Amino acid sequence: MPAPAVLSRHPDRLLPSEPGTRAIARRLYDAVRDLPILSPHGHVDPQMLADDVPFRDPASLFVTPDHYVTRLLHASGIPLGDLGVGRGQLTESESRAVWRRLCEHWHVLRGTPTRYWLESELAEVFDVGVQPSTDTADDIYDQVAERLTKDAYRPRALFERFRIEFLATTDDPCDDLSAHAALAADDSFPGRVVPTFRPDRYLEVSAPGWAAAVSRLGEVSGTDTGSWSGWVTAMEQRRAHFAAHGATSADHSHEDVRTDPLSPGQAEQLYRAALSGDATADECLALRRHMLLEMARMSCDDGLVMTLHPGVRRNHHAPTLASHGPDTGHDIPLRMEYTDALRPLLERFGTHPGLHLVLFTLDETVFSRELGPLAGFYPSVYVGAPWWFLDAPGAVRRFRDAVTESAGFRRTSGFIDDTRAFCSIPARHDMSRRLDSGYLARLVSEHLLDEDEALETVVDLVDGRPREVFKL
Amino acid sequence: MPAPAVLSRHPDRLLPSEPGTRAIARRLYDAVRDLPILSPHGHVDPQMLADDVPFRDPASLFVTPDHYVTRLLHASGIPLGDLGVGRGQLTESESRAVWRRLCEHWHVLRGTPTRYWLESELAEVFDVGVQPSTDTADDIYDQVAERLTKDAYRPRALFERFRIEFLATTDDPCDDLSAHAALAADDSFPGRVVPTFRPDRYLEVSAPGWAAAVSRLGEVSGTDTGSWSGWVTAMEQRRAHFAAHGATSADHSHEDVRTDPLSPGQAEQLYRAALSGDATADECLALRRHMLLEMARMSCDDGLVMTLHPGVRRNHHAPTLASHGPDTGHDIPLRMEYTDALRPLLERFGTHPGLHLVLFTLDETVFSRELGPLAGFYPSVYVGAPWWFLDAPGAVRRFRDAVTESAGFRRTSGFIDDTRAFCSIPARHDMSRRLDSGYLARLVSEHLLDEDEALETVVDLVDGRPREVFKL
Amino acid sequence: MPAPAVLSRHPDRLLPSEPGTRAIARRLYDAVRDLPILSPHGHVDPQMLADDVPFRDPASLFVTPDHYVTRLLHASGIPLGDLGVGRGQLTESESRAVWRRLCEHWHVLRGTPTRYWLESELAEVFDVGVQPSTDTADDIYDQVAERLTKDAYRPRALFERFRIEFLATTDDPCDDLSAHAALAADDSFPGRVVPTFRPDRYLEVSAPGWAAAVSRLGEVSGTDTGSWSGWVTAMEQRRAHFAAHGATSADHSHEDVRTDPLSPGQAEQLYRAALSGDATADECLALRRHMLLEMARMSCDDGLVMTLHPGVRRNHHAPTLASHGPDTGHDIPLRMEYTDALRPLLERFGTHPGLHLVLFTLDETVFSRELGPLAGFYPSVYVGAPWWFLDAPGAVRRFRDAVTESAGFRRTSGFIDDTRAFCSIPARHDMSRRLDSGYLARLVSEHLLDEDEALETVVDLVDGRPREVFKL
Repeated sequence: MPAPAVLSRHPDRLLPSEPGTRAIARRLYDAVRDLPILSPHGHVDPQMLADDVPFRDPASLFVTPDHYVTRLLHASGIPLGDLGVGRGQLTESESRAVWRRLCEHWHVLRGTPTRYWLESELAEVFDVGVQPSTDTADDIYDQVAERLTKDAYRPRALFERFRIEFLATTDDPCDDLSAHAALAADDSFPGRVVPTFRPDRYLEVSAPGWAAAVSRLGEVSGTDTGSWSGWVTAMEQRRAHFAAHGATSADHSHEDVRTDPLSPGQAEQLYRAALSGDATADECLALRRHMLLEMARMSCDDGLVMTLHPGVRRNHHAPTLASHGPDTGHDIPLRMEYTDALRPLLERFGTHPGLHLVLFTLDETVFSRELGPLAGFYPSVYVGAPWWFLDAPGAVRRFRDAVTESAGFRRTSGFIDDTRAFCSIPARHDMSRRLDSGYLARLVSEHLLDEDEALETVVDLVDGRPREVFKL
Repeated sequence: MPAPAVLSRHPDRLLPSEPGTRAIARRLYDAVRDLPILSPHGHVDPQMLADDVPFRDPASLFVTPDHYVTRLLHASGIPLGDLGVGRGQLTESESRAVWRRLCEHWHVLRGTPTRYWLESELAEVFDVGVQPSTDTADDIYDQVAERLTKDAYRPRALFERFRIEFLATTDDPCDDLSAHAALAADDSFPGRVVPTFRPDRYLEVSAPGWAAAVSRLGEVSGTDTGSWSGWVTAMEQRRAHFAAHGATSADHSHEDVRTDPLSPGQAEQLYRAALSGDATADECLALRRHMLLEMARMSCDDGLVMTLHPGVRRNHHAPTLASHGPDTGHDIPLRMEYTDALRPLLERFGTHPGLHLVLFTLDETVFSRELGPLAGFYPSVYVGAPWWFLDAPGAVRRFRDAVTESAGFRRTSGFIDDTRAFCSIPARHDMSRRLDSGYLARLVSEHLLDEDEALETVVDLVDGRPREVFKL
Repeated sequence: MPAPAVLSRHPDRLLPSEPGTRAIARRLYDAVRDLPILSPHGHVDPQMLADDVPFRDPASLFVTPDHYVTRLLHASGIPLGDLGVGRGQLTESESRAVWRRLCEHWHVLRGTPTRYWLESELAEVFDVGVQPSTDTADDIYDQVAERLTKDAYRPRALFERFRIEFLATTDDPCDDLSAHAALAADDSFPGRVVPTFRPDRYLEVSAPGWAAAVSRLGEVSGTDTGSWSGWVTAMEQRRAHFAAHGATSADHSHEDVRTDPLSPGQAEQLYRAALSGDATADECLALRRHMLLEMARMSCDDGLVMTLHPGVRRNHHAPTLASHGPDTGHDIPLRMEYTDALRPLLERFGTHPGLHLVLFTLDETVFSRELGPLAGFYPSVYVGAPWWFLDAPGAVRRFRDAVTESAGFRRTSGFIDDTRAFCSIPARHDMSRRLDSGYLARLVSEHLLDEDEALETVVDLVDGRPREVFKL
């Protein structure tokens, strides 16, 4: 049997191939490689940090909960159940079986960012030195499992090792935020972990559980949400609760970003019709769009940064939703439109000094056509970093290429990892730093920017942008 | 008069310019350069191979039937009639006149893949050593015409010389496939030439000839196609006929890919209304969309790979259609949507083990937004290689860049030449091999992939993908 | 205090980084660097050249009227009023204050073409040797202001220094073109400055001032525009007036490019309804679309090149429109469709020998999907150079990459600067020459084109294309 392939991490990975440009990129990257991580948007579970319990096993750390990984394995013919999805806590032998599945199909990940992140995590966090494969699966499993028993691999220790300075989680408006409170009160934990207000389900008027959700919102906020004005008050109250726990942003993800206004009377009428089940689908949609506009008004008033992550058909495959639940890899992007959709919002609040509006997209055609031009005029608008299917080298390069010429660098958000895979955070930020260094190096090598300006810019992208855009 | 410009074919053509990356690309390309050609989708006439008659003349081999060539000459002001389009068999002097037109306008093809393919064919198949031009037109004509009289330039000899191992043609469901049968029965012809089931006209319910077409379908299949269930049975019967003659796929090209289901009762009712001329345009469309869904069901049952080539406005210029017929260069692409359109099909059959669904597009915005994400979850879905207006170096690079990060390499179809220009087949496959080698070389030079993995991948793209995806 | 950063203009700027490709690009660029400027579409004020009065001050030359500059400064938090927008003539201290604002925020322009053009203008036209910054703002202001007092910096002197051979302005159909007449009659001015017919407001039937506009059109043309046929006659008459003053093109900018025909009776009826205020929004739109088709018919008859610049939501931010007027940086692009929209026009006139139709877009998705394919078949259609938000290095490269493979080089328009910033004209044309040289150099380095062909092509792009496409 030949020796297993080495898992090496070349110091110049992701930097441009052309030697002159690579040398510049290396210098730029050196300036930001070790800066602390600011993560203003993501999906880490705060309880994990509050409790600081060790991670259970390699499969549930790297495979089962990460739809980036499971979707490509599913496409290769592995049922989601065989990857542990929806099966709760795995036994040791189940976890090992899941891990073997990953390693056997390692080659299907070639060219994907998922492969890049997993390699980084294995090599840099767990000191794995060989490529995953059928032959090496068990050895790697054992090595990772062994590390996970050590204190140095518990969440807080990794948090510190990863040099995370700021981490925002994503939370339901009805959450009491006790995990965040516990972390804030704990002097032994130096990191700053704050919640993000994510009220989607209270705006999705036509979804089955909406009435129950707003009823619960009423209870939690001590407000009668039986009226539109009550809904508004409850939302304001919960946003204040979040802000008091350190939240700096409110995040929204609906199918579109239309913000057509209703009159107060119309809003009240539609709201009551929706609660009593008498609203049509069109009326529910009209109410949701008005609610999004109202959330922008609240952002102007309370200063929470408004981030939009729209344009995805959730749970595309109903049978998989039924068998394995949501967030299992079959959310598929949709074509998007922002120019007209956001016009009512921007006419009202686009120049309001309190508003920061960060626009993300899965439809990259809007980068040069709509988002760059919008962010190049409105002082409130920032173009969000490439997201989800687009947070990979090629897409990031296309993003910079599409946005920079109409909006420059300072109208972009800085990197957002948006991940539930805790151990991938440093690899994701590092990838972004390398790619931005490479992009700026090309501008220098084409004599469009002096190197000292490029240096200032790459530091600003890593440090200045997130601080300013997310009001850290 | 200066010496005519040399027609040279540099061994490194199309490989990346940066010397380090080019060296890697060269090694990758060397590994696949001489592999046999698998052509699972194209438009070669099987009768040509069955009869093995010599090609007539340079114009009707290279110019007249190839709308890639005639369209750009037409745009440059040459009437299609002057290129022999729609004029039937050309005399020697007519053929020479057409050929001169091409050579005089050679410069208008600069930067196009058509020029690249023609150069390859002239240089590599016909040993032409000078650039086409007004001055060289007659000499090149004579040289090509002379070769065409030789046995070595008859279709079967070229088929062998081109190292074509597998070739699929595109055929009408009513075709008796006698040419395929003759080829299969002929022990002196070692190649495998199979039909592809292409039933578009039997689904285009609103087209003028539809009722006559399904009537003929009934006759050929010995089934009464006066009812919806009869149509279904006839289709199944003809698919079986094709499968018995070696077909591995069914191809579909309609304006959109919607697959909204009808109930059996609705289908029956609309079908009868359509036959009697009483269906509205919307009803015809609804029936066609349901028919496409039904074809997917058949693919699950009989195993024929389903390929979709949608999204083109056929015969954009009615006057040219009237004077010169269809497929004369004025089909123009349309904006496309797949995520919602294919949802009914994928909810029903997306995880069916019998289905392979290959999605092609002329709207490249869907590569990263829809096709990569769909193929990255559904085990049935593959992203088709860049097609028609997109089967050229820049577009192929954009395709890999847009798809790989969300779907990897193994969820793509492998190269499809889709050509009616027989002599261009090797040049087209060679172009694809060079471009994939270059793409993989960049991943290696950026340290994202080991070279041995890149080697395995490029071989898989040339050999493994078409065999698996098209069930060869 | 450290010495201020040098403002240097590297001779190889914008050329490819890879040394071998750069060497080729340099040779190509050398061949076109000093060719005269042909500017067939732009927004320079002809009166400025007719009167040849000195430019007033640095702010009103470089900042206030240029929405490319003011929009990004506005996005950075500077009110438009602080940049002099809408404030009429500035005092010296106001102008200096505006200039300081620009210099203080110089870094927000990094990576944008605006920064590139301003650098070129300062360095090459005004001999400025330091980067703008807070520290250098006053010195640069003084230097530029001083130059502006010299005869060598008056418009005509710069026109000559810039080597402008042909300049088209953009003018209202009711304009008497006296400035153009004065320039043409002035033997001391060797340049050719011609008007462009831009009739948008007479076609925007639903806009508030339409009826008054067509009434004035009637007066100016001596035609009764109370009927549809009168409108047509008046337009023909004004086009003839423009042609007599040297115009070679008519330019149109509406939200879409639909050209659905009306019958003469319908047109007459809708026109009268619109005049009397009785037409619905849909009827106004239908009339406008028919009017655009009618303009194409006129172009066939009188030979004026038809250029389309569609697809932008004008004055996106109503409060800014109210406070500062139009063209103040908040026009935002829209998604576009050309294939079906232009079909009626192209079926009628697409092969008419008198028609040149140049299609511009702000939605780059149509380059490969629609514009390349259309221009690759219709002899009347040319793909317009990247425009407005897309006239920058990355976008230009994407344009060539997206269009060349389906339409070659000769179906593109040649560069159009489309600017109101007079001093940026040479920098804009130079940028285009560098980028096309770089693009062609890549084709040479990948052995897709011989260098002598690339040389012929780059000269054709700079000189041949504009002359042919715009009938200069």
